Amino acid sequence: MTAKYFWEDFPVGDKRLCGPVTVSAEEIIDFALKFDPQDFHIDAELAKHSRFGSLIASGWHVCAMAMRLVCDGFMLETAGLGSPGVDKVRWKQPVRPGDSLSLRALVLSARRSESRPEVGLVHWHWDITNQLGQSIAEIESTGMIRCRSTA
Amino acid sequence: MTAKYFWEDFPVGDKRLCGPVTVSAEEIIDFALKFDPQDFHIDAELAKHSRFGSLIASGWHVCAMAMRLVCDGFMLETAGLGSPGVDKVRWKQPVRPGDSLSLRALVLSARRSESRPEVGLVHWHWDITNQLGQSIAEIESTGMIRCRSTA
Repeated sequence: MTAKYFWEDFPVGDKRLCGPVTVSAEEIIDFALKFDPQDFHIDAELAKHSRFGSLIASGWHVCAMAMRLVCDGFMLETAGLGSPGVDKVRWKQPVRPGDSLSLRALVLSARRSESRPEVGLVHWHWDITNQLGQSIAEIESTGMIRCRSTA
Repeated sequence: MTAKYFWEDFPVGDKRLCGPVTVSAEEIIDFALKFDPQDFHIDAELAKHSRFGSLIASGWHVCAMAMRLVCDGFMLETAGLGSPGVDKVRWKQPVRPGDSLSLRALVLSARRSESRPEVGLVHWHWDITNQLGQSIAEIESTGMIRCRSTA
């Protein structure tokens, strides 16, 4: 991949819209059977009697879908170098089969690495919304991105 | 499921060991093709020339594996009610094909919900280690768990 975006392309306040992507019951169950096989993520009938009232996606599935939205939105065209971590994840509303998710990535802060001047850090707020415009999750994450110039 | 563990079973200082589970190149690629298709997660040849030197698992895949370790370790036998979120994720070392991951869940704090006395909250520190005993990731998460008694 030849990168199109570098660290300099993500100044404070930069906003990027990603998605939407729709999630099916099959995808919810497939993820949960592998990684989070609690009743309300894998069994539609038992989920009806849970406090959620229907099958809902694992919170980690929501995070993974958010990552895919970011990848398709801009990260696959960005000189990304991975991430040291995430500062906050809030699962605010259940994600149900048929929900369609969009993501807004807002740059909260950006700085060059002190030890590696060719690397920049970007601190994002990702707001994930459903087809009704409800915010269903928020993630604050840090990304390392190669700089276009080391100046 | 009839729950074996309730909120009262997770006092501050409670430690539970989960795993190990081994991750294959196929699983790393399968997850990443769906959710995080960056070169160093999906293409072993390109990954060799990345800063990581080999294929590595998506950080979100590591989180999903951690959740599965917790599920198999105790959560599937616990009266869990979901989670409002995660306060911190740190990806400290790459996870490579063949790595075997274990997890230690330590209860940092626990309290009853003020609005719903039948619900308790547990704040955990999850430390995920590889087969060499190296800590590869840390997660601080909050779980909601039904109480055995509302007293």
